[in-house]
Amino acid sequence: MSNINISFILEALGTFAFAISGIRLAAQKDFDLFGAFVVGFVTAVGGGTIRDLLLDTRPFWMTDSIYLIWTLTALLFVILFRKYLIKMNNTFFIFDTIGLALFTVVGIEKSLIAEFPFWVAIIMGTITGVAGGIMRDICINEIPLIFRKEIYALACIFGGICYHVCHINGLDQMFTQIATCSTVLVIRILAVKLKISLPKIKGENA
Amino acid sequence: MSNINISFILEALGTFAFAISGIRLAAQKDFDLFGAFVVGFVTAVGGGTIRDLLLDTRPFWMTDSIYLIWTLTALLFVILFRKYLIKMNNTFFIFDTIGLALFTVVGIEKSLIAEFPFWVAIIMGTITGVAGGIMRDICINEIPLIFRKEIYALACIFGGICYHVCHINGLDQMFTQIATCSTVLVIRILAVKLKISLPKIKGENA
Amino acid sequence: MSNINISFILEALGTFAFAISGIRLAAQKDFDLFGAFVVGFVTAVGGGTIRDLLLDTRPFWMTDSIYLIWTLTALLFVILFRKYLIKMNNTFFIFDTIGLALFTVVGIEKSLIAEFPFWVAIIMGTITGVAGGIMRDICINEIPLIFRKEIYALACIFGGICYHVCHINGLDQMFTQIATCSTVLVIRILAVKLKISLPKIKGENA
Repeated sequence: MSNINISFILEALGTFAFAISGIRLAAQKDFDLFGAFVVGFVTAVGGGTIRDLLLDTRPFWMTDSIYLIWTLTALLFVILFRKYLIKMNNTFFIFDTIGLALFTVVGIEKSLIAEFPFWVAIIMGTITGVAGGIMRDICINEIPLIFRKEIYALACIFGGICYHVCHINGLDQMFTQIATCSTVLVIRILAVKLKISLPKIKGENA
Repeated sequence: MSNINISFILEALGTFAFAISGIRLAAQKDFDLFGAFVVGFVTAVGGGTIRDLLLDTRPFWMTDSIYLIWTLTALLFVILFRKYLIKMNNTFFIFDTIGLALFTVVGIEKSLIAEFPFWVAIIMGTITGVAGGIMRDICINEIPLIFRKEIYALACIFGGICYHVCHINGLDQMFTQIATCSTVLVIRILAVKLKISLPKIKGENA
Repeated sequence: MSNINISFILEALGTFAFAISGIRLAAQKDFDLFGAFVVGFVTAVGGGTIRDLLLDTRPFWMTDSIYLIWTLTALLFVILFRKYLIKMNNTFFIFDTIGLALFTVVGIEKSLIAEFPFWVAIIMGTITGVAGGIMRDICINEIPLIFRKEIYALACIFGGICYHVCHINGLDQMFTQIATCSTVLVIRILAVKLKISLPKIKGENA
């Protein structure tokens, strides 16, 4: 299978998993079908949209209707299989982490093509990975989950540093992409399995 | 009366009604005059602003101070006539629906001028119509109303489909605009009168 | 000391104070280090970012890593000195107000360079000063403070009017900047000392 086909499938899985996470939370909050669709779409494409606005390029989902179609598929999936969703949590977790890894790489590469320095590219990779989830939680009126729990954004940042190290050492692009994705995947999976989280910031009254 | 004058008046009514809806909710939440103004302005111009950022064109309200003036008028109106606002609910509903219809058409046409495909134009029409209300509800820290109640965005989507059908059949632009607005108006009014709403999305525990 | 050095130091103080305000609120909400950093950064650069997106120029913090560094410094500061933060409230208040004044001037001048009319420049100055705080409060899931309390945005608006009056009278740019900053500072400090606030907007049931 060619490289393009693999990344197409991985990106689809990631988009699907991100949309599913938004739609499931919308369902818990008593949203209607339209609200669930919007929250799913925002979760799936929100991070890349903010990145594209900051980079001043056309938002990626406006050039290809596939992201809309994947979100509609996710909506249909939740409607049809809602009783089995909990049992699929591990699968969704893997898809979601694949999405996170892939979105990070896409964000970094788009920024480097636009000739931004590496520290901007790492931030853009992280925004691509996490901002959709932040917008999702704002839409359902909750404090964004990733501000309080789990190593999530940090996996993107380490992925970005890995990309940078490969890049300055002149390594092959495909190797760099795979190494970056693997870094994000390993850190995220280890953090969840070993229940590692970032320390809380202590307030003045703590 | 010329076409330009009619659409000027209708757009003013829509802006005014959108601003009023934001200011009234701000009043319920104990906002001060500045907060009420901001929420009114965000409700009135937020959807079009997000559309223009996505389309990479200058935000429409930055080229003409009339939107600012309509929002200030709405603020003054709420201050002066607050005791009579509830009695005017039906009037506001009509103005608001006119705004929704007109904003949808403006969003579609701006996207087509920018040479986007029709599915993007329909999304942009819908964003123009509904995103201001979503931003309003985020500002007052509530779950966006349109995610849970009423046929609202769906009216924009059907309006967009109507525009598309007229367009591919080569119908006159003014007829197309009137047909689109009428579609939005009729669907929205029927949905409210007949209390039709979209089904909820069921969660895994439902 | 040259003009550039002074404004560099003042801008640093403002960025630092804005970031501190976000990080302290994040700490009250049980955020982890990453969440606190994001909220601090959003508070510090959010207003200028929205301004730059609306003006269609490159977001200022993407061209210089100093804003990132100031936010990291603020994070470290809160971690190290959290027991003494309350005692420093007056100092933070002064820094924050300096930031507000300076950000207002930056927002106005960027808009005028982009050849927008003065009423747009005043709005952009105000957005630069206050939108970061609004985004901060949305991130921590609270109603934005400035919609309900204190004269804050109004100080920016009066600063903007002062800039306009100096400008149309052909006064020297440096004098205009100092007069504008002073206007913002005096109004903000007087409002807090004299406990002046804007009237609430009364709802229909009040």
